[in-house]
Amino acid sequence: MSIAIVGPGLIGHSLALALARSDSNARADAARQAAEAVVEIDRGDPVERIRGARIVVLAAPVDAILRIIDEHCELLRDVIVTDTGSTKRAIVAAAHAAGLRAFVGGHPMAGAERGGRENARADLFEQRPWFLVPHGAPPDAVAEVSAMVARVGARPVICSDEGAEHDRVMAAVSHLPQVVASALMAIVGDAAAADLQWAGAGLRDTTRLALSAPDIWESILATNADAARPLLHTLADELRRVADGLDDGAAVRALFEKAGRYRALL
Amino acid sequence: MSIAIVGPGLIGHSLALALARSDSNARADAARQAAEAVVEIDRGDPVERIRGARIVVLAAPVDAILRIIDEHCELLRDVIVTDTGSTKRAIVAAAHAAGLRAFVGGHPMAGAERGGRENARADLFEQRPWFLVPHGAPPDAVAEVSAMVARVGARPVICSDEGAEHDRVMAAVSHLPQVVASALMAIVGDAAAADLQWAGAGLRDTTRLALSAPDIWESILATNADAARPLLHTLADELRRVADGLDDGAAVRALFEKAGRYRALL
Repeated sequence: MSIAIVGPGLIGHSLALALARSDSNARADAARQAAEAVVEIDRGDPVERIRGARIVVLAAPVDAILRIIDEHCELLRDVIVTDTGSTKRAIVAAAHAAGLRAFVGGHPMAGAERGGRENARADLFEQRPWFLVPHGAPPDAVAEVSAMVARVGARPVICSDEGAEHDRVMAAVSHLPQVVASALMAIVGDAAAADLQWAGAGLRDTTRLALSAPDIWESILATNADAARPLLHTLADELRRVADGLDDGAAVRALFEKAGRYRALL
Repeated sequence: MSIAIVGPGLIGHSLALALARSDSNARADAARQAAEAVVEIDRGDPVERIRGARIVVLAAPVDAILRIIDEHCELLRDVIVTDTGSTKRAIVAAAHAAGLRAFVGGHPMAGAERGGRENARADLFEQRPWFLVPHGAPPDAVAEVSAMVARVGARPVICSDEGAEHDRVMAAVSHLPQVVASALMAIVGDAAAADLQWAGAGLRDTTRLALSAPDIWESILATNADAARPLLHTLADELRRVADGLDDGAAVRALFEKAGRYRALL
């Protein structure tokens, strides 16, 4: 089974490494195989590699995946195609509009503080959920993509809709925390740039996500704006409410106790 | 030199353990000494212990420190007194109003995910800043408290004012992140309680502070409301601005790049 990975970053390279490691016929030469499995679309030679593949994995930022589907739709129409984009509705809709017959949207819940191929790890996906959005794809295509996901140690989670439920949940558990971490770090930095030396582990934990790559997040947020926007407004309202009631011990306690109960579930 | 520690929590017990460890004359019996050094005000017998002490350390939540200063001001007037409260203006003002002649406000920048004496550690303060706010205390009192702080491995940082600068910086690097982490966890939990299983390391990091004890934070925020409130309003404004511009890639990128630059300074 030949798998072509289009996309040169952390996810694409980690997938290549994980697949190479899982291939018992080629363990001795895993590293070289992993490198060869990666087709970098930017080098201008993906056409032949895609044509010969059984599964094509678009492992790029959301905007790049949308562009690849658009530009290479002829080539992708008759092969099993999946992707690793962080939002699913826009990509699944684009694949359908482009006439991809065997497109199974995908999103591995895996990442690292630093992206890029130099941080790729064969164990990146182990025990992690990997969402799949078949949305009408043929059962054999879904089975093959699921098998690939399981092969790298991830848990396939099949979504029954066109990606709306996935995007709604991600807005809450991923996109909101990301925006909050970046906005918080920007405000703290503006207010106390000269005093950041006094910050403790609390600020470091709370703003760790502010180290994420800006270019990846532009298209994630643009393709999930309708789901993320009301949550950001709700949080802004809550911060104003707390700000105006900092002297109200009962209100502060109620918020902290509720938050503590939810946090204990993570 | 006899040091009486008033307060039964993580900080007070860690200080007792650290002092016992540093006392080369009593290393063999460090654990028992540490336990004996702790005077728990709630047990009703602090009077004699305070009376015999060279330094009294009030290691309790801010509201408890304010109450102890008020209730025991006669006893504390003629001894060196310091504290470990997370805000300084209210406590320093209360000590002055109560006529404490040798009060040196203090705040160790140390803590742990879980509080309580059962999580106390002798190395809790090592290499950590420990703010001191003498505000007119006699030089020998400041020197003795500084020596105690250095003895447990912390770095004494002397503040030249009555605590306003300390409280302003803490509002930015500590109190704002704490409120944000709790409010974020509350909003995410309300929006996606059934889907928290899908959260990754990002949400866990961003909301780790939501595990903090609510009762401690009531009085921290109440005694620093004027410094924390405008920051919370600024952040709420920023979240609204981002929410309304999620489709604006340039704006998202500018915020994320600015946040990333500040975060790299931590």
